[in-house]
Amino acid sequence: MNIVMANDVDNCISSMSNASVADEADEDVVNPWNVVSKSETGVDYEKLIKRFGSSKVDDELIARFEKVTGKPPHHLLRRGIFFSHRDMHTILTHYEQGKPFFLYTGRGPSSESMHIGHLISFIFTKWLQDVFDVPLVIQMTDDEKCLWKDLKLEEANRLAYENMKDIIACGFDVDKTFIFCDLDFIGQCPAFYQNMVRIQKCVTFNQVKGIFGFGDSDVIGKISFPSIQAAPSFSTSFPFIFNKAKVPCLIPCGIDQDPYFRMTRDVAPRIGLPKPALIHCSFFPALQGAQTKMSASDQTTSIFLTDTAKQIKNKINKYAFSGGRATIEEHRQLGGNCDVDISYQYLTFFLEDDAKLEQIKKDYSSGEMLTGELKKELITVLQSLVAEHQDRRTKVTDEVIKQFTTPRKLKYNF
Amino acid sequence: MNIVMANDVDNCISSMSNASVADEADEDVVNPWNVVSKSETGVDYEKLIKRFGSSKVDDELIARFEKVTGKPPHHLLRRGIFFSHRDMHTILTHYEQGKPFFLYTGRGPSSESMHIGHLISFIFTKWLQDVFDVPLVIQMTDDEKCLWKDLKLEEANRLAYENMKDIIACGFDVDKTFIFCDLDFIGQCPAFYQNMVRIQKCVTFNQVKGIFGFGDSDVIGKISFPSIQAAPSFSTSFPFIFNKAKVPCLIPCGIDQDPYFRMTRDVAPRIGLPKPALIHCSFFPALQGAQTKMSASDQTTSIFLTDTAKQIKNKINKYAFSGGRATIEEHRQLGGNCDVDISYQYLTFFLEDDAKLEQIKKDYSSGEMLTGELKKELITVLQSLVAEHQDRRTKVTDEVIKQFTTPRKLKYNF
Repeated sequence: MNIVMANDVDNCISSMSNASVADEADEDVVNPWNVVSKSETGVDYEKLIKRFGSSKVDDELIARFEKVTGKPPHHLLRRGIFFSHRDMHTILTHYEQGKPFFLYTGRGPSSESMHIGHLISFIFTKWLQDVFDVPLVIQMTDDEKCLWKDLKLEEANRLAYENMKDIIACGFDVDKTFIFCDLDFIGQCPAFYQNMVRIQKCVTFNQVKGIFGFGDSDVIGKISFPSIQAAPSFSTSFPFIFNKAKVPCLIPCGIDQDPYFRMTRDVAPRIGLPKPALIHCSFFPALQGAQTKMSASDQTTSIFLTDTAKQIKNKINKYAFSGGRATIEEHRQLGGNCDVDISYQYLTFFLEDDAKLEQIKKDYSSGEMLTGELKKELITVLQSLVAEHQDRRTKVTDEVIKQFTTPRKLKYNF
Repeated sequence: MNIVMANDVDNCISSMSNASVADEADEDVVNPWNVVSKSETGVDYEKLIKRFGSSKVDDELIARFEKVTGKPPHHLLRRGIFFSHRDMHTILTHYEQGKPFFLYTGRGPSSESMHIGHLISFIFTKWLQDVFDVPLVIQMTDDEKCLWKDLKLEEANRLAYENMKDIIACGFDVDKTFIFCDLDFIGQCPAFYQNMVRIQKCVTFNQVKGIFGFGDSDVIGKISFPSIQAAPSFSTSFPFIFNKAKVPCLIPCGIDQDPYFRMTRDVAPRIGLPKPALIHCSFFPALQGAQTKMSASDQTTSIFLTDTAKQIKNKINKYAFSGGRATIEEHRQLGGNCDVDISYQYLTFFLEDDAKLEQIKKDYSSGEMLTGELKKELITVLQSLVAEHQDRRTKVTDEVIKQFTTPRKLKYNF
């Protein structure tokens, strides 16, 4: 599972040459292995909602979040970064009636260090866990990364545990969160494997060909993998948490992961289990711009969670695509373009203060604020975010990892 | 996994309409889901050995069995019922050098009761275990049966445990034998799942299409299933038995299962593990004749392990295809044809006494023995075999099953 990082997109193209068959030629390419937009403002999300058949996160839904939870909606929700959903109203109604649900998200551990973009989904998931007080399962698809990339199992598994430290550092409640690596966990839970088989029995090669673009030369592990990402959508895959209860699931994830869960939602009623609900995140743009397709192995395209304050400063100053004008005079006169400015975009993800963000937008658009000043704001925010993250990560010991990954009952009130 | 029962052949044809693509039109059809011969003497095994590229079990190999083990070769070996092999000499050399190997066989639990034909492989496997004093793993592919047939997981799993009782009743040594159902065991053994992924990474859809005839409308569970039947070929799938040692494997099985292990042998060196050796059994003919394709749901086509003495007598008298002549006079004059006579064929499987079998052949071929007399010999042998089996089966309690199915260290001397 890959969440919201457009920078990861080209890792798998060579092994998935027909990955985009489901997409029409003039459309943005959005699937679990590839995200390409021709527009400098990035993917057209309104069109994507129509194409995927999901629903827009509109003002009514955001208001309902606030009413139901009694908490102000998260800025990632208010600012349209979590922009699309499936059955979110059903989950809220369910919750209003005092009935249980659980959260499921995940990560495909493809690299040693995660980017700041990878945090988005986890930050939002933590907020969901806090305001709804619900259990959460997090899947690390080390098996997927081994199948798609030139990685040995041992290496994919090692990366999974490295990435897990970053995820735990986001502050999840150990009493309510179970994290697992497929390569370790599937061999510890017969119910999980049994649900995999139930799902595998309902999905044909033709279907995964249509949904994911698999071809005849793909290995059989890839072809059956969608069942492994689907299985955690069902509470019966985790009997140690839910006994045999059929508890509905809400999945916060990148919109690129939606194909997996369209398939899962198609299968669910056929195996007598509830369809998972979804809330989709937009892509986190690369430093060089929202339309740019870049290599995750290129250190210059993003801010890593291991970067020093100095590296953060240098990368943003050097690479962050600017919506500013060619000269100061021109900028003062015409103003900057926030729609394409990556520093401004990043602030919408990470600067929580609405009033300050609004002021920055106003000042930059009017030309009062220069690109260097805007970048300085972002540098301050990210230096502090990353330093705090690094500090929390050092506290994630092997013992803490063991607590999170031990199959066990979780605390929740229903 | 289906072992040696030609009667099972048409169970899966509807779901595997193109299962025979690998076979040429004028050849016997032999694959895990289908066995059809146009000849009344059944499949042409010499041709099959050439087509599959395996080796014949010849006099030299049989003599070597005797020399290496110091025991007389089993009648199933002497009589050419285990007729084909791959790398059997390598296993014997290995054994002569005092190095370890292990046995692996299995069963696809497709019906409540097993036939006498299902016993063949297990009788021979028990003999191998006894003379070589080696550990044995037996896989019950309840997941396969759930994927191929209209069976719920719970039902396939229940059938697996019913069949397991018949297998245990063959007399396997509990200290040296581990039996497992996929649906229970895969979720108990991370190393097994990890080997599945390693195998799944080496095999493309094109390959399983060529080997097994899978098509685009097959479900993804079928497409990845070959990795599950391949995994027990590797000792590293069972760390509780072998620690991390790479112990070579010998697989006694029906020749119809060879495609799975051709694939496995192709994958083995690519994942740094030893190729499994094989010894192949011919098909056990249906009562109505060696070329006949019949329904396993038809009680009249075989002798079940649950049949009463009377049922056995009636079925053989009524249905066993006879090589005798149209009238007694003609029979006395021309003699019977042992090559097509099912009663005689069955005796070659189950009558251990070589001298007596030779005498029967002589008497029947010369016309001295009539079909009724031949059938009476078989009835006596099978009534006793089945009654003794039923007696042993009553002693297979839940506690005994638990002992066999508990992952544990096995006893063996290397």
